[in-house]
Amino acid sequence: MKPTVQLLQDILTEVAPLIGQGKVADYIPALAEVSNKKLGIAVYTNTGEVFKAGDADEPFSIQSISKALSLTLAMQLYDPQEIWQRVGKEPSGQAFNSMIQLEMEQGIPRNPFINAGAIVVSDLLNCRLSAPRHYLLEFVRQLSGDERIVYDKVVAASEMLHGDRNAAIAYLMRSFGNFHSEVHPVLHNYFSACALKMSCVDLAKTFSYLANKGCLAPSGKRIITATQTKQLNALLATCGLYDGAGEFAYRVGMPGKSGVGGGIIAVVPGEMSIAVWSPELDASGNSLAGTRALELLSERIGRSIF
Amino acid sequence: MKPTVQLLQDILTEVAPLIGQGKVADYIPALAEVSNKKLGIAVYTNTGEVFKAGDADEPFSIQSISKALSLTLAMQLYDPQEIWQRVGKEPSGQAFNSMIQLEMEQGIPRNPFINAGAIVVSDLLNCRLSAPRHYLLEFVRQLSGDERIVYDKVVAASEMLHGDRNAAIAYLMRSFGNFHSEVHPVLHNYFSACALKMSCVDLAKTFSYLANKGCLAPSGKRIITATQTKQLNALLATCGLYDGAGEFAYRVGMPGKSGVGGGIIAVVPGEMSIAVWSPELDASGNSLAGTRALELLSERIGRSIF
Amino acid sequence: MKPTVQLLQDILTEVAPLIGQGKVADYIPALAEVSNKKLGIAVYTNTGEVFKAGDADEPFSIQSISKALSLTLAMQLYDPQEIWQRVGKEPSGQAFNSMIQLEMEQGIPRNPFINAGAIVVSDLLNCRLSAPRHYLLEFVRQLSGDERIVYDKVVAASEMLHGDRNAAIAYLMRSFGNFHSEVHPVLHNYFSACALKMSCVDLAKTFSYLANKGCLAPSGKRIITATQTKQLNALLATCGLYDGAGEFAYRVGMPGKSGVGGGIIAVVPGEMSIAVWSPELDASGNSLAGTRALELLSERIGRSIF
Amino acid sequence: MKPTVQLLQDILTEVAPLIGQGKVADYIPALAEVSNKKLGIAVYTNTGEVFKAGDADEPFSIQSISKALSLTLAMQLYDPQEIWQRVGKEPSGQAFNSMIQLEMEQGIPRNPFINAGAIVVSDLLNCRLSAPRHYLLEFVRQLSGDERIVYDKVVAASEMLHGDRNAAIAYLMRSFGNFHSEVHPVLHNYFSACALKMSCVDLAKTFSYLANKGCLAPSGKRIITATQTKQLNALLATCGLYDGAGEFAYRVGMPGKSGVGGGIIAVVPGEMSIAVWSPELDASGNSLAGTRALELLSERIGRSIF
Repeated sequence: MKPTVQLLQDILTEVAPLIGQGKVADYIPALAEVSNKKLGIAVYTNTGEVFKAGDADEPFSIQSISKALSLTLAMQLYDPQEIWQRVGKEPSGQAFNSMIQLEMEQGIPRNPFINAGAIVVSDLLNCRLSAPRHYLLEFVRQLSGDERIVYDKVVAASEMLHGDRNAAIAYLMRSFGNFHSEVHPVLHNYFSACALKMSCVDLAKTFSYLANKGCLAPSGKRIITATQTKQLNALLATCGLYDGAGEFAYRVGMPGKSGVGGGIIAVVPGEMSIAVWSPELDASGNSLAGTRALELLSERIGRSIF
Repeated sequence: MKPTVQLLQDILTEVAPLIGQGKVADYIPALAEVSNKKLGIAVYTNTGEVFKAGDADEPFSIQSISKALSLTLAMQLYDPQEIWQRVGKEPSGQAFNSMIQLEMEQGIPRNPFINAGAIVVSDLLNCRLSAPRHYLLEFVRQLSGDERIVYDKVVAASEMLHGDRNAAIAYLMRSFGNFHSEVHPVLHNYFSACALKMSCVDLAKTFSYLANKGCLAPSGKRIITATQTKQLNALLATCGLYDGAGEFAYRVGMPGKSGVGGGIIAVVPGEMSIAVWSPELDASGNSLAGTRALELLSERIGRSIF
Repeated sequence: MKPTVQLLQDILTEVAPLIGQGKVADYIPALAEVSNKKLGIAVYTNTGEVFKAGDADEPFSIQSISKALSLTLAMQLYDPQEIWQRVGKEPSGQAFNSMIQLEMEQGIPRNPFINAGAIVVSDLLNCRLSAPRHYLLEFVRQLSGDERIVYDKVVAASEMLHGDRNAAIAYLMRSFGNFHSEVHPVLHNYFSACALKMSCVDLAKTFSYLANKGCLAPSGKRIITATQTKQLNALLATCGLYDGAGEFAYRVGMPGKSGVGGGIIAVVPGEMSIAVWSPELDASGNSLAGTRALELLSERIGRSIF
Repeated sequence: MKPTVQLLQDILTEVAPLIGQGKVADYIPALAEVSNKKLGIAVYTNTGEVFKAGDADEPFSIQSISKALSLTLAMQLYDPQEIWQRVGKEPSGQAFNSMIQLEMEQGIPRNPFINAGAIVVSDLLNCRLSAPRHYLLEFVRQLSGDERIVYDKVVAASEMLHGDRNAAIAYLMRSFGNFHSEVHPVLHNYFSACALKMSCVDLAKTFSYLANKGCLAPSGKRIITATQTKQLNALLATCGLYDGAGEFAYRVGMPGKSGVGGGIIAVVPGEMSIAVWSPELDASGNSLAGTRALELLSERIGRSIF
């Protein structure tokens, strides 16, 4: 079965009662103020069709979804071994901001989607790009075709103000020799990337290259190679959902990446990219209704990588 | 491209030089004595074709590959919540026999493929089956169609002699109320399952239900439901390769399960099940040449879940 | 100022209001049933005088106080290096039954007063004594001069029934090669030692050798050497109060050993041994009112090792 | 037996052969350059007598010995609960710079003598003093009577350059709300205190208040109360020697504090303060020959708190 607008609307109706059972991220005011009622979904097929429902056109803070974009840029700029000698490819088996594992493993983060790993990736970008924030913004505008995309400066500033733990992570990695720039500029870039405001439609279009062997659909413009795409999807499937990757694979069965703003992107390789948004999170930090919506979509259209 | 005997032979030729760069498991004499030169591969398609090369018909100790079989039996016998309240679905992010995580997480193992989780599954089987060892043996004989399959009693006895850490794991879980039987009979069953001797051909046939929506290929006999099959493949993809699941997904891109005997099974959903065997292990405890053989196979036949 | 019966009575009156603010150990019924109102203290001077107040003559379960007795026997039976290569001399910085540290430190317990360390000491005694339970009982009867001292078999049996965690500890140490006997007989001895029933007066007399350079006061019968006595007192001062050794040193300033039965023994080297009993425990597992009584006694008589 | 110059000289002769068996701290060049042959000892009695031998008048980097001075100042400036709600009193059971424990215990350091704890104490001083570096310098000049004492600015600057781990510690505590100042000024103060250059004679005189119920000997000038002195000695005895406090108590039996510059101060309450210096360290980071010298001194003069 193919996705349709009707199907997406039905799914949103079905998951709406979950709202009230999760918890909106409140560690910074700018996120806490978002209405917990927001609910949107967008599907973008490799043939270029868009299906959407609910608040699919409203921009929100993509937060950790940006980690997949930063890694994509790093894969464009660096040879694989330059990346993978500094960050691992394994699930962390820990809450997403744990420093315990980082110390035990000598400053080498487990994977590029935990905070420590994404900070290393930011350090990589900072070492090779003259204006990393500008570069990333142009990149997502190009991928999504949406020139209106901006950084939310209030969110970015607020993250910096509450960024002591991430500063601790960066300094700890520097003490192990795995961080090469000044800490604060890199954190500024890192928090800015998290503060990108994009809609479900923007996100579904942006990540179409993950569903299309590395090329933007339907234009065919290459972003990364087909092999890099498989690799990135593999990392998303095993490490993309914080400490809920196994549960997400079990229920949804797609590579994906979540953010504490309540967004999740997911991919059916060869067919479509999907984005959902519902701000309330489950205990693992993933969107509660968003995960359920993806689970229903997977069942209804009969698609999963397993 | 389809698998052929020639392709499998070419792959074995290509990976053979890796022999000598890994390390045969030596914690029990019965495993240490196996020749490191053994190398075999078998592919079993959903249409019932067998392709094989090298030592594909020689039985070896399947070790932790048995954990996938035990979980399959538990999924037949129990409701999902009865299983998943006692064992998690998340990658461990740890070496496969760590007790640290088990204590931190109050006696609930991270997933059914680490030792602690498999011991809980053995406890589940022990509580519901009158003769679990006999039952499992009949099960694999039926799946593989090979009546010659037996437990290697020397290996099982040797594992028991070196089983203090697993006893510690079981007692620790019992102290948290997550182990209900006597410890030693369950360990006997657990070690016996690890001591099953099966060939690559046996294994590829046995796991055909994972490639075929839960039914044995080509007979169509149902083992578990299609949904359970997706779930089991998801768990294998995220947790099936010890602390190397991310790397395996990145390189091979198939759900799989390895054992310290040097065997690995892998699945291309909808198409085929695969088994490889090469006793030397990499640092994560997975077959070194076996992983490379699967990586090459994935590339050559253009199959991966990503 | 010297201790007097009046002083001890005053102290008990002063600490009595703390009863109700702690928590009686309830992990086994036999301990949970003890009245939380019990309160006793006894002082035994090196000149052989006994001062006592409250329930000082009522036997109670000495629990971990027995770990100091077992170590004393091990010091009689073994050369120092035979003991200290198998157990450390450092505070654990952890709750008293943690397995995390034990795994990190390769099966070598931090000190002889955490459970793991005391189980190693029991293993040492079991390897060299033909009847360790009988031997220990005779030892405490001799030290205290009280032939009525017995093991509480109900408590010992109950501990065995709830002893899964200690079994896990023993098996884990065996997996590291640091446990040489069968597990269950040693645990039987260990739990029996914990189940010794002794009064405050018994305990104060028993430990007089720690206040008297290794000789029983006032008879002068040597138990251990003067140097061993200093060493044992040093270990008690740094490791004798679970994860509250620093607080106890800060407030009381004497070497001591506590048990979850609510007893504490303490020593003023060169002058006296002291025992208190009040079953309610603080968050560290040490007698709440008992600690306060020792703190007051230290202040009033102006004695502390600091 | 009383200490004499001859005794001190004999002890230095006896421990000199240990030089070559330890390792000079080399994490900053300024420490690595110190000759490993340096060896000095000084005893200062409560009656005001100085006994000294070897390099007892040569200033060296006191490093973590300064943590005892900073805590003394904090005890002068703050009520006890203001200090002890932010830092614990328990041994860490860990290497001295571990962040694992700090994260597990929610940003509350175990005690004031591990780095994290001393950084909290520096934060306390920074919040209440307008010129903490000047204040501390005047304090040690007053205590020792030596106006020549200075900060070694090369050492302090070098520590700052290698201070990423301590920055990580401070930021992690700030993320838990247990650090109130800007990070870098506090680290500057912290590293400056570590870079104080003092001789054994300076140190023995400086810490005479710990041997003399809180008053400088022999002038009687009060530094802290008698109770605070007992408390500080108790903390030194349980936490003052990194992860070697138990071993130090077992062998030496005095409250003490070591630094990675190879200095150790120790106290016989009521009698004398002692300082030793030998730059080579043992595996716990304490002066190898220095510890042995204190052990011999304790034996020869028959003094120990146990």
